[in-house]
Formats: sequence, structure tokens, C-alpha cells
Amino acid sequence: MKQLVKSASLIGSALLSLAAAPAPPPQPSPSEIVDAAPAGEWVAIAPADLLIIDLSPDTTGTPRRVVIQLMPPPFSQSWIGNIRKLAAAHWWDGTSVNRVQDNYVVQWGDATEKKSLPPGLAKIPESEYSTLRWDKLGEPALPSADSYAAETGLFAGWPYASDGHWAWPVHCYGMVGVGRDMPPDAGSGAELYVVIGQAPRQLDRNIALVGRVIAGIENLSSLPRGTGPLGFYEKPEQRVPIISVRLASHLPEAARPKFEYLSTVGNAFGKYLDARANRRDRFFVRPAGGVEICNVPVPVRKGR
Amino acid sequence: MKQLVKSASLIGSALLSLAAAPAPPPQPSPSEIVDAAPAGEWVAIAPADLLIIDLSPDTTGTPRRVVIQLMPPPFSQSWIGNIRKLAAAHWWDGTSVNRVQDNYVVQWGDATEKKSLPPGLAKIPESEYSTLRWDKLGEPALPSADSYAAETGLFAGWPYASDGHWAWPVHCYGMVGVGRDMPPDAGSGAELYVVIGQAPRQLDRNIALVGRVIAGIENLSSLPRGTGPLGFYEKPEQRVPIISVRLASHLPEAARPKFEYLSTVGNAFGKYLDARANRRDRFFVRPAGGVEICNVPVPVRKGR
Repeated sequence: MKQLVKSASLIGSALLSLAAAPAPPPQPSPSEIVDAAPAGEWVAIAPADLLIIDLSPDTTGTPRRVVIQLMPPPFSQSWIGNIRKLAAAHWWDGTSVNRVQDNYVVQWGDATEKKSLPPGLAKIPESEYSTLRWDKLGEPALPSADSYAAETGLFAGWPYASDGHWAWPVHCYGMVGVGRDMPPDAGSGAELYVVIGQAPRQLDRNIALVGRVIAGIENLSSLPRGTGPLGFYEKPEQRVPIISVRLASHLPEAARPKFEYLSTVGNAFGKYLDARANRRDRFFVRPAGGVEICNVPVPVRKGR
Repeated sequence: MKQLVKSASLIGSALLSLAAAPAPPPQPSPSEIVDAAPAGEWVAIAPADLLIIDLSPDTTGTPRRVVIQLMPPPFSQSWIGNIRKLAAAHWWDGTSVNRVQDNYVVQWGDATEKKSLPPGLAKIPESEYSTLRWDKLGEPALPSADSYAAETGLFAGWPYASDGHWAWPVHCYGMVGVGRDMPPDAGSGAELYVVIGQAPRQLDRNIALVGRVIAGIENLSSLPRGTGPLGFYEKPEQRVPIISVRLASHLPEAARPKFEYLSTVGNAFGKYLDARANRRDRFFVRPAGGVEICNVPVPVRKGR
């Protein structure tokens, strides 16, 4: 579990011993840093990378929408290809949210497990769980140690972990993955889940991650917990119907939601990361001096 | 952030390099290990350490109960003394759950902030955030590195982190803490919160932890998220009424709920911890070789 040293300099490593120093005057909070980030450091998310899930309205008639950002290459592109085909085929329309397990995941797909999949989906080998070579990362690692991997950091806006040979995406809160049966190549992308609790990092490299929820996660995380094994709903009427799942790129231009994320290689993100590791805003009396990769969520906002 | 070495041997350190070894045959899952733990390794929780919150019934009329286990000495006993007095005074009866912030906390107490506190509550200095000397720990540390502290482990059934001088409790999912205003000694124990997301470890040593939810957390974690700043409910009618908060020791013997936790110094817990760090049960193809302290929740079951 030792920390590797890469050629790139470590972000904020000079600040690690601050906890023992005299308290400095209050500094901006992470959210204040994000609010002040220059427009040029926000990156628009392509419509083909936005997956829009419309659930049935809630009991008050309020619409419930969840928006997922799909990962960029080289992560998980074979599953994401399948997901784009499933959305294009309107395959999820009429399926449902079937499982809500507290402090773990919300899962959706075909509860009957009998619905035919569209033709042309790839069968994807386990080797695609790690598709990024460590020496291709090129971006600085987090200065903090990690309980699961030799190194963690952000790559092109996404959290990664690495053993010094390969890098892979990380199961943080809000990350979306591909449910599978026992064989590691059994997941198509038709059965998806989102993390709603403490990062279940034991799943890293055991299951594919394909994206993250960037809006509306409360429409999944606040659903009633399932009382069956693994948090599955026991009665069909407890399932939450899915009206439709579409890529934004398949919607008319005017109907496409727009989102941006904060570049993870800009100045503002560097300051944000440092502030997440060393809270010096007014409430805090003792900065931690470190931060876990899943406690540095990449800021996302509505696009302009 | 380097890992200290204590005199006690590290649990399971020999297993850290397993990820690279050939896959062994499937082994028991963490829950199978817990289910097989001998009766003698389960520890009954004292009635004076059980805080029982009864919320108003849900929309179907189903009762909603949350049970909290309070921490043992030397952690946070001044706040816990206040909490026992507040419960004895029935102070929380008629208050409410006022804040639900996704991936962060659920908070309850007096929404008006005007209700008089009972006499005799202690005002507690910041120094009580860390009240356990590292050299008094006496139990083995986790073998894995931690992003926030030099060492983490379990002490008398509770997660701790340490800098090698002092040890303190850790903000894991389900942990209960004392809300406060800006001054670090401003929290009495009347305003409480529970973690419902990724462990907000930046709060460690900045705010007091007093216990953990051991039953009914879904009655808090699945509540609708508040839409005001910090996830506070914007309308009074959105708040969830609290009917009563009692210590089990104040209830008649027959009405006391009974719970037990798995001793963290027994054989079964050692095996459970190892299995959390190295999943070798059937679903897993690649054991992580490490585990974060908040991914080793101490097993709790209904008492016999």
C-alpha cells in the first residue's frame, strides 16, 4: 500500500503538515472556491455523454429526473457502447428501479430478467475493468495515502486508483456501474446501479463503472429501502417505474439539458482539492491534512 | 500520513499482497463469517447505552423507530452525559428532523432554536474531541493506510483514527454527532446528526461524535432531501415529528430493545476484517488487498 512517486508533482503536498501549525485566518470554503472558478475552467459535457432517466412522478405528481454523465475513453467504452445502443432502442422504457439497499446501491433494469436485449451488444471481458495504463495518466496524484491502492487521483475529470501498472475508475458515491451475474464478463450494461453510501471500493476492478449521477441523485437515494435480500423490493408495486431513458444527443436541441464540470487540471480545482484536504474555513478548528479520493467530488453545474 | 508501527501485531498484514497471487478457491463472505460467529463473541449493549427515537408513523401508518448506541468511555462522555439528561427530561419529545442533506447528514432537534435546555448541562471544551491516548489503545491497528490519519483501527468496538499521540472517533456512515455553531465548544448534545453518505472525515476532531445508529437508519436516510441551504427543510410541514426519545434504561424491562455487537477483539471479527479487505467469496475476481476503516462496520444484531 505504499505511495508511488510519479514524475508529475504532487498536488498540495507542502500542506500536509499544516494540522500541527498555528491556526491561519479563515480561508474560502471548497464551495466558495468552486463558485469563484473562472468560466474557462468549466468543461461542457457532450450530449452523447448525458444519459437521462425519467422516473414516474412522485406521489405529489412532481417529475423525477436523473442525469448520468458517461465516462470518457479509455474507461469502460465497450459497456458504454452497449448503453448507448440500449438507450437508442428505448430498451429501458417500461423497466423499473428494483433494488434499494441502504448504504450501498440503487439498481434498475428489467425486473423480469426476461426482456430480450437488442442485437449487437458486445460481450466484454474482465480485462476491460482496467484499461488505462498508469504511465499514460500524466496528471498529478493525490498527496494522501489510500487504503485500497498505491495511488489515487483525477484523470480527465474522473477519480482513478492505480497499482503503478494500470489505473481504474473508483466506486465513489454517485458512481454508476454495470450489474452482473457471477461470471466477470456477464454484465451487458442493461442492469445498472448507483452507489448511495460509503464508497464500496472492494468492487473496484470486480465490476465495470460507466459514469456518475450529476443531477437528481436524491430521486434514487431517498427511495424506500427494499426489504428483500440485497435490498430488492419484495412486491412488484414497490418498484419505481422508468418512463424513459435517452441520450441527450437523441433529443431535439432545445430539449437537451446542459451541464459542465470543473476541469480537474485547472487552478480552481487545485485550490478546491487543497481546501477539501485542509479545511480552513470558519467552522473548522483542525484541518485534516489529507483527503480520500471519494471526498473530492468533481464539481458539476448546469450549463450556460 | 505514514503508517505507524505499534507493539501489537497488525491484523492480517500477511494478506496484503494476495491481490497479485493466483485466485484461491471461494471463501466465506463477511456476512457468512458474522453469521457463524460463536455466541461468546457477541457483547450485549447496556440499556443505558441505547437511545431510542420514535418518529411519527409514515404515510402508511407504519411506526418509525431509530436506535442509537452511545459510545463507551473514554470517548465523548461529557456530551453523552448531556444526552442522557436531555432524554431523561423528555426534551426531544415534540421536536423534529429538520435537515436531510444528500450524501452528508440527517439532523434533528429544536427547529425553533428557542426551546429552553434542562438545567445542569455541561459546556464542553474542544479538548474533549480527542480523549483517548494512543498508547492506551492496546488493540491492533488496521493494516491498510488511511487518507486522513497515521493509523486507524477498532477500540472496544468503535472505529478510531490516531496521529500517534491521541486517538479519536471517526465519521463513518451511521455515526451520530453533536451539531454546533461556530465556536468549537458550542455543542450541547441537543442538536444531533447522523452521517448518511461518504464518510465526512474532515469533521473528525472538529465536532464531537457520540454514537452510531444500530437499527432503523433507513427511517432517516430515505427521508426526502431538504431543498433549503445545507439541506434544511424549507416548510415546517416537511419536518418529521419526533414523538419521543428515551434511554432503554428508562423503559420497563419488557419494553427494552436488546442488541449485541460483535467483539472487535475476537477471532470472528479478525476473520471478518480480513474478508472485508480481501473478498474471496464467489462474486469477486480480484481482492482489494486493503480496506478503509469506514468499510469495516462493526456487526450488530438483535439480542437474544
